[in-house]
Amino acid sequence: MKLRIQLGLNVQEIRRSRGISQEALAHAADIDRGYVGKIENAKHAATIDVIEAIAKALDTEPMELLKPRC
Amino acid sequence: MKLRIQLGLNVQEIRRSRGISQEALAHAADIDRGYVGKIENAKHAATIDVIEAIAKALDTEPMELLKPRC
Repeated sequence: MKLRIQLGLNVQEIRRSRGISQEALAHAADIDRGYVGKIENAKHAATIDVIEAIAKALDTEPMELLKPRC
Repeated sequence: MKLRIQLGLNVQEIRRSRGISQEALAHAADIDRGYVGKIENAKHAATIDVIEAIAKALDTEPMELLKPRC
């Protein structure tokens, strides 16, 4: 469960740093907007395919999305 | 799809380097043995929760399982 929270916070942080809305990220990653919210709030267990699509949409390495939070 | 393949190869490489069988990894990660095989062969899209369980069972950081293959 901890990794879900890490993933969610990393996606949110990178998305915001890029000035991208949840809606724009969902569109770019070809996933449902509500789903982006559930991932950022650790309410849903994203698959490796969704993680890949989000990383591509955020123009970041997938590994960065699993980076431990300091 | 590329990330699935990366994940599968990384899981297999680390598992073998630890001298752990697919069965022992499945048991330690509390997932089905056949499922480990499907993840290693990129036939199945693992969730973030399964990636966390596998990383813990392999005593490695989850990020390492998404490391690009050289």
